[in-house]
Amino acid sequence: MAFSKKPIKGMTDFLPADMKLRDSVLAQIKRIYASYGFTQIETPMMEHIGNLTSKQGGDNEKLIFKVLKRGAAFDRAWDSGNRDELVAEGLRYDLTVPLSRFYANNKEQLPSPFRALQVGPVWRADQPAKGRFRQFVQCDIDVLGDSTNLAEIELITATSKALSRVLGAAGIDKFTVHVNDRNILRAAAAKAGFAEDAIGGVLVTLDKLDKIGFDGVEKELLDNGADPACASAYLELFKGDIDDASCKAFCDAIDAEGLAEASSNLDEIISSARALTDDGVQIVFDPTLVRGMGYYTGPIFEVTVDNFGISIAGGGRYDEMIGKFSGEDVCACGFSIGFERIIAVLRDAGVTTLSDGADEGATAFLIDGKASSEKRFEALERAQALRDEGRDVAVLPMRKNMKRQIKTLEEEGFTQFEKIYAN
Amino acid sequence: MAFSKKPIKGMTDFLPADMKLRDSVLAQIKRIYASYGFTQIETPMMEHIGNLTSKQGGDNEKLIFKVLKRGAAFDRAWDSGNRDELVAEGLRYDLTVPLSRFYANNKEQLPSPFRALQVGPVWRADQPAKGRFRQFVQCDIDVLGDSTNLAEIELITATSKALSRVLGAAGIDKFTVHVNDRNILRAAAAKAGFAEDAIGGVLVTLDKLDKIGFDGVEKELLDNGADPACASAYLELFKGDIDDASCKAFCDAIDAEGLAEASSNLDEIISSARALTDDGVQIVFDPTLVRGMGYYTGPIFEVTVDNFGISIAGGGRYDEMIGKFSGEDVCACGFSIGFERIIAVLRDAGVTTLSDGADEGATAFLIDGKASSEKRFEALERAQALRDEGRDVAVLPMRKNMKRQIKTLEEEGFTQFEKIYAN
Repeated sequence: MAFSKKPIKGMTDFLPADMKLRDSVLAQIKRIYASYGFTQIETPMMEHIGNLTSKQGGDNEKLIFKVLKRGAAFDRAWDSGNRDELVAEGLRYDLTVPLSRFYANNKEQLPSPFRALQVGPVWRADQPAKGRFRQFVQCDIDVLGDSTNLAEIELITATSKALSRVLGAAGIDKFTVHVNDRNILRAAAAKAGFAEDAIGGVLVTLDKLDKIGFDGVEKELLDNGADPACASAYLELFKGDIDDASCKAFCDAIDAEGLAEASSNLDEIISSARALTDDGVQIVFDPTLVRGMGYYTGPIFEVTVDNFGISIAGGGRYDEMIGKFSGEDVCACGFSIGFERIIAVLRDAGVTTLSDGADEGATAFLIDGKASSEKRFEALERAQALRDEGRDVAVLPMRKNMKRQIKTLEEEGFTQFEKIYAN
Repeated sequence: MAFSKKPIKGMTDFLPADMKLRDSVLAQIKRIYASYGFTQIETPMMEHIGNLTSKQGGDNEKLIFKVLKRGAAFDRAWDSGNRDELVAEGLRYDLTVPLSRFYANNKEQLPSPFRALQVGPVWRADQPAKGRFRQFVQCDIDVLGDSTNLAEIELITATSKALSRVLGAAGIDKFTVHVNDRNILRAAAAKAGFAEDAIGGVLVTLDKLDKIGFDGVEKELLDNGADPACASAYLELFKGDIDDASCKAFCDAIDAEGLAEASSNLDEIISSARALTDDGVQIVFDPTLVRGMGYYTGPIFEVTVDNFGISIAGGGRYDEMIGKFSGEDVCACGFSIGFERIIAVLRDAGVTTLSDGADEGATAFLIDGKASSEKRFEALERAQALRDEGRDVAVLPMRKNMKRQIKTLEEEGFTQFEKIYAN
């Protein structure tokens, strides 16, 4: 087969300059999450295909990169004539399925609650587009085994702090954490008169509010067969100055049985997180926030950068997922940073690294091919001495076109050049 | 399909304690390689299957995890009845094939020579065994576009320094860098009387010297049809106190045409590297060093830890590989650290991290479920203040079995506990 120079469709080569930014951003995020007591874990990039196709992953399950069986197992599968038999493993499409397996496998050795930090690539065979890749890095924190709202408060506070630091480098000192609760969402739809079994569909439509507006949502509800009075009553709930609407007032208006608990829980999350985060972080109750994933069971959150209109982080409580998955109930709550989006925002702002300015730049020794062994060795020794002083130094052959050589080295971060000529 | 708790065969879950060691070792290695002017790059974990099966990868090509085509392309492949059509991509089995593709794709933006550092997982569907995994981390440095032995000298010096630092933490202050040259290997076999087309096979046998000894090698040569006089003359070359044999003396004895250049080149590499490395690093000419990979064209190197009898790093010059692969000749030389073996050596020595001792340990606030909102919030505020002072703090619900809770937290690195009771 012919050699292909390009990376696989939707995947990216990262050059030294890319890595410098990516590494420095990850280091910042990891440092801040560590300060909240999150400890890092790592799972294999591949999972059993059965774990990936347990219906917990929603549409992502359609986007799995599947790995072929090998040897005799492959021969048997091929001979069986059943195409579903070909696959043994798949590349993970998120970090939550592996986390569930990890916890089931290792929980005896882990504290409870367990605070996990995971950073690593995931794969989805989605149609590539600007900012959408087939291999991309996710950066997740999760609290497993904490049913109290300490989990939500710490997740929101930690993620806000990480985002403040990282976005601050791009001159972005304001962003909004939208907070809602699945129980409030369901109660609001029921209050407006939607039947229990219609609510899932109603939320799918409400989730499009950002894109299609209230008129679009109303039209889609009606198109889907909603009663007009019902649709109208529903949308009325969200109108007004909803950014400042307090959670309690909204829930009182719905006045559903059992909602008081969700309401005071969310109120405490919001007020605590507000008091514990920087001024630039707006924490708002947003009764229109849905979040796509069906597995959320309680509070949900999403971070938007005000002037960009994009979501850069999201999460929520998913108390039932791990149990469905592993057969043993574990309450859980997580927050995931959209790492590739953060990188895109920083690049657009011209940020090249988050490392502090102490970096002096590297030195290159350029050695003429005709220089004597003694001169070469002398240069190697001087380079070594500089490294011992903490400097970064490369010893390289001098090119005929030294001007071009120096130019590309400068682009890589070299700032000083020592030239060793033959004479 | 049923849920599986265990990771895929031959792959590993890394717990927080594992990650602490792995991360700190990688950080050390990366820091030292940066001081030699190596800059980090990253390529996608998947490559075009054609790139992975171009016959450059030797036996590794038999161990590829293959990724299935998707959608209509998969349907067509299935219907074709040709099993070779099923696969579009594969997981990389090393970092050298992706580096070759990367360089061909991006060389206009890279300096020449280009010094690349790559760290990342690779996959091989090998039979798992102690210390042999199906997903494992490789840590490679490569110099592309440098035909001078500055490449070899800097590769050996940089890798020796990284290994000194890392192994030093395990109390290992001595290791040996074995150096040889493919041209010397071939000339020695020719000198003993082997025909040109027999030499490849002879080297495969010589490569087993460590395991089967001189008698075993002789027996295998004879079993493979070698002339007894030839085999005996060949082995005679390597006997004697070979560790101290100088490269020049060995080559003079062979006295082959054109060998003087390889000999003086290797002599300069060895003497320069000796002068530039720590005392504990033994750099020796080892005429029996073969290294399996067929693509090496010149100097080759391998690092062994004297008391362990294992190889922990290896590399060499492979001037023809990238050209065969991409159609454009680029000379290249690399050194790869066996990261998982280093980790195994450190673990065996009881090393838990290479981070400096400044780590005070983290603090856990344990909050009684009956504590008032005010008390909870007060704890959250105090935790935040401690973080601002640079401490790592987690706020957690107190467990009924607090003794066990504290024990597992201590295992995770928490050293201080603040208990917030209801009263």
